[in-house]
Amino acid sequence: MAELVKSPARPEALRRRIPDAAVTRLPVYLQILNKSITDGVSQVSSDQLAALAGLNAAKVRKDLSYLGSYGTRGVGYDVAYLVYQIKRELGLLNDWKVVVVGAGNLGNALTNYSGFSSRGFVVSSVVDIDVAKVGKKVGGIIVRHVDDLKSIVNDDNVTIGLIATPPASAQCAAELLVAAGIKSILNFAAIGLTMPNDVSVRSVDFGMELQILGYYEQLHRPVVCQ
Amino acid sequence: MAELVKSPARPEALRRRIPDAAVTRLPVYLQILNKSITDGVSQVSSDQLAALAGLNAAKVRKDLSYLGSYGTRGVGYDVAYLVYQIKRELGLLNDWKVVVVGAGNLGNALTNYSGFSSRGFVVSSVVDIDVAKVGKKVGGIIVRHVDDLKSIVNDDNVTIGLIATPPASAQCAAELLVAAGIKSILNFAAIGLTMPNDVSVRSVDFGMELQILGYYEQLHRPVVCQ
Repeated sequence: MAELVKSPARPEALRRRIPDAAVTRLPVYLQILNKSITDGVSQVSSDQLAALAGLNAAKVRKDLSYLGSYGTRGVGYDVAYLVYQIKRELGLLNDWKVVVVGAGNLGNALTNYSGFSSRGFVVSSVVDIDVAKVGKKVGGIIVRHVDDLKSIVNDDNVTIGLIATPPASAQCAAELLVAAGIKSILNFAAIGLTMPNDVSVRSVDFGMELQILGYYEQLHRPVVCQ
Repeated sequence: MAELVKSPARPEALRRRIPDAAVTRLPVYLQILNKSITDGVSQVSSDQLAALAGLNAAKVRKDLSYLGSYGTRGVGYDVAYLVYQIKRELGLLNDWKVVVVGAGNLGNALTNYSGFSSRGFVVSSVVDIDVAKVGKKVGGIIVRHVDDLKSIVNDDNVTIGLIATPPASAQCAAELLVAAGIKSILNFAAIGLTMPNDVSVRSVDFGMELQILGYYEQLHRPVVCQ
């Protein structure tokens, strides 16, 4: 009789990696599925999920297959289990701690942003380079000096940095975060960052969002001959 | 000899419509191309553009073909003309006027956001429902009451509305914008909006961006057996 052996942790390099485009859709599915749970829905088909996400059903099935979920023909997916799988994949089964760099209006808005804590992200610290802001409160958190970043990250087990500085300070802020041990950065400054390959950066660029809207706004207008 | 006739404006329904996914990439190309111009680069190949945008070259060529740009084999695309074409398609040859609903921290940050004006969007008005905020200045703009939305939109020729309210007020804010004649909305509140089909809504959801980062952050961690 074969001995039961504890399966070893898979090395990172062998871990199934989900394509980037599919990763960006997982939070969308999660939002839809959470609403389904609130509405008392326990099963969902790929067709239904696709319609709500504005995608085609084949893409939804493919995306969910990366989670190891294939659904049951004629029944669909178990909503609660799918939520669990997506949360597991996104690392949302535990809360993440977040540090905000920049205690201006944007840093203030982000610290108070209701959409973070409801999704498993806790802003635990705010830092600024301006000593005049240090010691003041932002969203109930006392602002600390950017020089304290390393100890904040270590002591508080912070894993994600948010950059809410003016564009000219963003690269410097990012480098300070990386020096403090942060590997995941969400950048709100309207400027690109140059980072080492092992750092994940996502940039929220409000201006680009407006440019996309500009296209649709233009569709509403009379077409001018060129 | 055939008479020269002025070609009639194409009816909107016949206008070539660019697929939504391609529209979202146009601002990315534009940012890269603007930087190329700053760097003194006048020609760019689809391979180069693809590498900078993190896409494959075939997709870049397909996207640019919607603009009527096909490049020249061995030479590539003329950067300045491509910038013009993308700006034309996104409606950026003229400035757009924007109204911000919500004069809190987020509204304040958006009004001061440097990434808007540099991209052809001018925040021309800020409104709030709180009479205590009306008359105060936000980013150099005097806050007006939300009841004035209709006259602001008409008098100032505002075409885009930004929602920077708390989530509970966002749907109401959106309906007031639509009632005032706005057809393009950028929503910063962490909640979905239900809007008529002829209104374009884009939602900037900071929480979803963090969830995507969570996936990559988790890749840096040791894998735990399930």
